[in-house]
Amino acid sequence: MRKGDKYVVHGQKVWISTAQVADKILLLARTTPLEELSPKQHSKGLTLFYTDLDRSKIDVRLIEKMGRKCVDSNELFIDGLEIPVEDRIGEEGQGFKYILHGMNPERVLLAAEAIGVGRAALNKASQYARERVVFDRPIGQNQSIQHPLAKNWIDLEAAELMTMKAAWLYDNGQECGANANAAKYFAAEAGFRACEQAVLTHGGMGYSKEFHVERYMREIMIPRIAPVSRELILSFIAERVLGMPKSY
Amino acid sequence: MRKGDKYVVHGQKVWISTAQVADKILLLARTTPLEELSPKQHSKGLTLFYTDLDRSKIDVRLIEKMGRKCVDSNELFIDGLEIPVEDRIGEEGQGFKYILHGMNPERVLLAAEAIGVGRAALNKASQYARERVVFDRPIGQNQSIQHPLAKNWIDLEAAELMTMKAAWLYDNGQECGANANAAKYFAAEAGFRACEQAVLTHGGMGYSKEFHVERYMREIMIPRIAPVSRELILSFIAERVLGMPKSY
Amino acid sequence: MRKGDKYVVHGQKVWISTAQVADKILLLARTTPLEELSPKQHSKGLTLFYTDLDRSKIDVRLIEKMGRKCVDSNELFIDGLEIPVEDRIGEEGQGFKYILHGMNPERVLLAAEAIGVGRAALNKASQYARERVVFDRPIGQNQSIQHPLAKNWIDLEAAELMTMKAAWLYDNGQECGANANAAKYFAAEAGFRACEQAVLTHGGMGYSKEFHVERYMREIMIPRIAPVSRELILSFIAERVLGMPKSY
Amino acid sequence: MRKGDKYVVHGQKVWISTAQVADKILLLARTTPLEELSPKQHSKGLTLFYTDLDRSKIDVRLIEKMGRKCVDSNELFIDGLEIPVEDRIGEEGQGFKYILHGMNPERVLLAAEAIGVGRAALNKASQYARERVVFDRPIGQNQSIQHPLAKNWIDLEAAELMTMKAAWLYDNGQECGANANAAKYFAAEAGFRACEQAVLTHGGMGYSKEFHVERYMREIMIPRIAPVSRELILSFIAERVLGMPKSY
Ligand SMILES: Cc1cc2nc3c(=O)[nH]c(=O)nc-3n(C[C@H](O)[C@H](O)[C@H](O)COP(=O)(O)OP(=O)(O)OC[C@H]3O[C@@H](n4cnc5c(N)ncnc54)[C@H](O)[C@@H]3O)c2cc1C
Ligand SMILES: Cc1cc2nc3c(=O)[nH]c(=O)nc-3n(C[C@H](O)[C@H](O)[C@H](O)COP(=O)(O)OP(=O)(O)OC[C@H]3O[C@@H](n4cnc5c(N)ncnc54)[C@H](O)[C@@H]3O)c2cc1C
Ligand SMILES: Cc1cc2nc3c(=O)[nH]c(=O)nc-3n(C[C@H](O)[C@H](O)[C@H](O)COP(=O)(O)OP(=O)(O)OC[C@H]3O[C@@H](n4cnc5c(N)ncnc54)[C@H](O)[C@@H]3O)c2cc1C
Ligand SMILES: Cc1cc2nc3c(=O)[nH]c(=O)nc-3n(C[C@H](O)[C@H](O)[C@H](O)COP(=O)(O)OP(=O)(O)OC[C@H]3O[C@@H](n4cnc5c(N)ncnc54)[C@H](O)[C@@H]3O)c2cc1C
Repeated sequence: MRKGDKYVVHGQKVWISTAQVADKILLLARTTPLEELSPKQHSKGLTLFYTDLDRSKIDVRLIEKMGRKCVDSNELFIDGLEIPVEDRIGEEGQGFKYILHGMNPERVLLAAEAIGVGRAALNKASQYARERVVFDRPIGQNQSIQHPLAKNWIDLEAAELMTMKAAWLYDNGQECGANANAAKYFAAEAGFRACEQAVLTHGGMGYSKEFHVERYMREIMIPRIAPVSRELILSFIAERVLGMPKSY
Repeated sequence: MRKGDKYVVHGQKVWISTAQVADKILLLARTTPLEELSPKQHSKGLTLFYTDLDRSKIDVRLIEKMGRKCVDSNELFIDGLEIPVEDRIGEEGQGFKYILHGMNPERVLLAAEAIGVGRAALNKASQYARERVVFDRPIGQNQSIQHPLAKNWIDLEAAELMTMKAAWLYDNGQECGANANAAKYFAAEAGFRACEQAVLTHGGMGYSKEFHVERYMREIMIPRIAPVSRELILSFIAERVLGMPKSY
Repeated sequence: MRKGDKYVVHGQKVWISTAQVADKILLLARTTPLEELSPKQHSKGLTLFYTDLDRSKIDVRLIEKMGRKCVDSNELFIDGLEIPVEDRIGEEGQGFKYILHGMNPERVLLAAEAIGVGRAALNKASQYARERVVFDRPIGQNQSIQHPLAKNWIDLEAAELMTMKAAWLYDNGQECGANANAAKYFAAEAGFRACEQAVLTHGGMGYSKEFHVERYMREIMIPRIAPVSRELILSFIAERVLGMPKSY
Repeated sequence: MRKGDKYVVHGQKVWISTAQVADKILLLARTTPLEELSPKQHSKGLTLFYTDLDRSKIDVRLIEKMGRKCVDSNELFIDGLEIPVEDRIGEEGQGFKYILHGMNPERVLLAAEAIGVGRAALNKASQYARERVVFDRPIGQNQSIQHPLAKNWIDLEAAELMTMKAAWLYDNGQECGANANAAKYFAAEAGFRACEQAVLTHGGMGYSKEFHVERYMREIMIPRIAPVSRELILSFIAERVLGMPKSY
């Protein structure tokens, strides 16, 4: 709500990264009430701000989570935060458009991260498979150990190509929504399978923190879930690429 | 090694549960050196003991691990542990046979545990799917949420029947090796899929500790790995049931 | 439509088995028009008949299909078939109820069939894997050949137990809808995986008609599709067992 | 065996395409007996010929098969075929090297074919899903129909990129063995999943020949099996890329 040369914000939002240590906050807030907009316009009336994270007005609560422990995640409760007009980014009511602009590169970024985690896991697993000897042979000599790892390698190669193509399209100003979503989806799943296989390849040792693969498996769940879920990506592609009717 | 009315034991073993708090230890130790046995007899010459966990002779080191934090896991280094003859279980050199006896029921037990964890996860996910509203509908109204959960239910039903059959065979003194192994394998995989799906059904909340499903997903990795790995089970069935030659 | 002591039927129906050779037809026909019924009553007003397949009134057109070539499938066009009242089964308007009665046992039957086809394929594949020598070893000595077959065996065991449980429930007059559907779903998928694997195990020979496994793979598609599809089974279980809202 | 300015060939080979109609045959034959070579040299001593398919010396027997009915496949029994020296391609004993040269592009070719078949199936399925109405809605409005098709699209995109990369490496004279094998493997699996899904999307109609998707599903089995099997590709990548010991 605008009050003179200030905006006053109330609301809450879950999953805000690094809010334990941040000084600044990037905030998308509704500045035109929903009631004043037609249903088709619901993504309008949102404004973007970059302002001080004023802890007297923002209650930051830590979320305990499965992994990614180097980055804190938080739930924020904002009660009367005052934002000076000069902290507004761009025009009032255009915030969602600005955010959308960053969504495709964010998917590409997460895809690349997933590939990195997947490859780290694959490397650890390959090394362990070459070295660990059970029944007088490196376990990597057994096809049930080496073939799944080969599949992981193939999938991660495919994921990299999808990610690079989406990045290239974006960098060249071309439509890349389907590609960025597909890359994120595919890379996260490929990365997950590699991490899961890395744990299983290590046998009991995969469960110990010492070999790090259990950590990779916890980390890789993030790009499967965020910033957009698998289900919404599949619906997006079904609708936009394959021409299916909206299912929800 | 026997010395008069004592056995003196040296050795190490990883993944010993509850050794942080235990007073007693169940120990399988070689009492006839490998060199004195033909290759075919390697499982002979092992003796079973139930004796005091003497911390002056046994160094117990905690293993940090992915889950199951209520039960400590440890690596044990045994250096000159003395065991009185009366702490021996059964006859000398017959220990492996006694241990084998307990293996099939242990698999059945782990299968049942996996089903339990899987069902706990499925229940949480079903409840969340019925209650969480996104885009004006419970997420459970979407087939991509409800169908995987239905599959989980089917798989867990199948797992239960396999587990019950293996238990029945064991209880009735019938050969149950293939069934106990199959039940453990199948139940652990079904349980895992249910736990994974439960996390994904919760979206970002699945990653938070608050909803417990991330913990189930960490727990369910254990029956996939222990007490015998998936690969060894599949080889067992391929060889014993399908008549394939040994692959390693 | 009833006319005196006759009913006169018009309509068409696809996938009618054995109509090329049949003398009789089991027919479910609408005897009360939809317009006279409220939306909730649409399954009412249907009557069951067992009458002569009068080829002067019924045009039977063969459907060329992927497999199951020993049983002809047909599309029927019925134009003015006259059915004497004495060919009616049970009461007028109660036909759907009678048909429903047979649905669960039909699912159990199809489940059993799928297990049979799957086991035939598994047997062929196991035999071939034991005998075919490539690179100086039976191919069944390779884990990537023997492990998938072991999984097929496990799945088919589980399928059998589900099918037996559903049959037992039905035979004992207990509610068996979820179990019969689950058994059909699970058995058809397990059977399919076994048939697919049998083809792949045979290498190029799997593609030749000589080894029959390609035929099993074509046959096993039927229980995946009929008498009810996988998607409708999963919705049934999601709704009835897990309490999810109807998705369509 | 060389006899003056002729070679005389005896032997048999299965899966020879188009031999029902061909006038010429491309033949790789052993010209130095195995006994004269050390085990490491077994791929030496083979010579390549392009000569007349002389039906008085070559018995061509048709193989009935699952699909690909436009191209005949045959088993050849060669008994005393005489080949003039001028029909030899390149040097004696170097034949295997020449054949190897064509293997990577053949894999790329098969990958492209698999993508084509997969896309044809996906298109048919998407169209049917948009048009077929069940329970008052196009079936494509249901997520359990539209999401698998979206996954198929993603996989086929990834397959295309892998295939293009392998082709580019080959065309630029770079090492492409792992890439060509990976592309063939991935494309064949992705193509298969698309064809399978296309059949299932069509319900009962998928089983009828009228909609062609059952034919695609039979066709797509070929690139899964030939010219090299999935298992040998995975072993190749495990050994060459991941440094695992040979498993057979
Ligand atoms: C939380 C936890 C608690 C445990 N508690 C106990 C306990 O109380 N007491 C106890 O004795 N043990 C315990 N264990 C150990 C457990 O039984 C072993 O981890 C398990 O049997 C796997 O053996 P490993 O770790 O030695 O794996 P390895 O034998 O090193 O195997 C590594 C990988 O190689 C594969 N592999 C090995 N050989 C072959 C082959 N020939 N062909 C194909 N694949 C092969 C395995 O399948 C596995 O994937 C525990 C483990 C965990 C994680
Ligand atoms: C570690 C972590 C860090 C994060 N960091 C940030 C951050 O910095 N900033 C930020 O803004 N967000 C952040 N997020 C949030 C993240 O973007 C969301 O969790 C994610 O977009 C999923 O949304 P949700 O959690 O609201 O799931 P929900 O929308 O509640 O979805 C729950 C489940 O229902 C499914 N679903 C919902 N609607 C449908 C439908 N119509 N059809 C089919 N399925 C459906 C979803 O796919 C999902 O499986 C973070 C999350 C995590 C786990
Ligand atoms: C329609 C069709 C057309 C064809 N056209 C031609 C043609 O024109 N010219 C031509 O030369 N060939 C042709 N082929 C043959 C084709 O290349 C072979 O079928 C293919 O390479 C597989 O070899 P195989 O059939 O001998 O299988 P096998 O080598 O007998 O293999 C059987 C199974 O065992 C597995 N296996 C074997 N060894 C191992 C191991 N060490 N580890 C793990 N698994 C193993 C294989 O992966 C396979 O799953 C054709 C085949 C078909 C189906
Ligand atoms: C060989 C063969 C023999 C047969 N014999 C007989 C017979 O003797 N008598 C007889 O009556 N029938 C017979 N059938 C028909 C069979 O029962 C049907 O094919 C089957 O029930 C599927 O219905 P459908 O073909 O109308 O598919 P459709 O209902 O058109 O479905 C197409 C696809 O859409 C999906 N779908 C539809 N609605 C939804 C929804 N709401 N949500 C998600 N997915 C949805 C389906 O699951 C399927 O994947 C036979 C079929 C075959 C192939």
